[in-house]
Amino acid sequence: MKFMDVHHDMKGITQAEMQAAHKADLAIEKDEGVHFERAWADPESGTVYCLSEAPSAEAVQRIHTRTGHPASEIHPVPLTV
Amino acid sequence: MKFMDVHHDMKGITQAEMQAAHKADLAIEKDEGVHFERAWADPESGTVYCLSEAPSAEAVQRIHTRTGHPASEIHPVPLTV
Repeated sequence: MKFMDVHHDMKGITQAEMQAAHKADLAIEKDEGVHFERAWADPESGTVYCLSEAPSAEAVQRIHTRTGHPASEIHPVPLTV
Repeated sequence: MKFMDVHHDMKGITQAEMQAAHKADLAIEKDEGVHFERAWADPESGTVYCLSEAPSAEAVQRIHTRTGHPASEIHPVPLTV
């Protein structure tokens, strides 16, 4: 199932920090059967959107928590265009 | 520039409704130099995330407004992984 998780506390995030965070997630995502596909960041408002394929929202959150950036919201997104 | 816009009032949206909304946006997006790339929906919470390439947030909003579904938030997302 696809999930979109949102972080609201990433003000000032840089491209390098975002890549490092994504790399940390990718390194352990298999432990929970998660795959983080893409992410988009607005450094000015501190918002990051993160698209994943995962068995549950809890699995997504366990990975993000272990890598030090738990999500503020996680939504299943069963519909896509 | 890439933008992520968010709709918070789409509770119960169906795949067919989402496709129709996206098609309506695509039909007039060139008027504002916008391209709507993808969208993801959570019908349960009524949240839709919509990724676009556009000259400004205002241009994105003008298209969404003309097609009857103005966004609740529009964020520039200059960083991507």
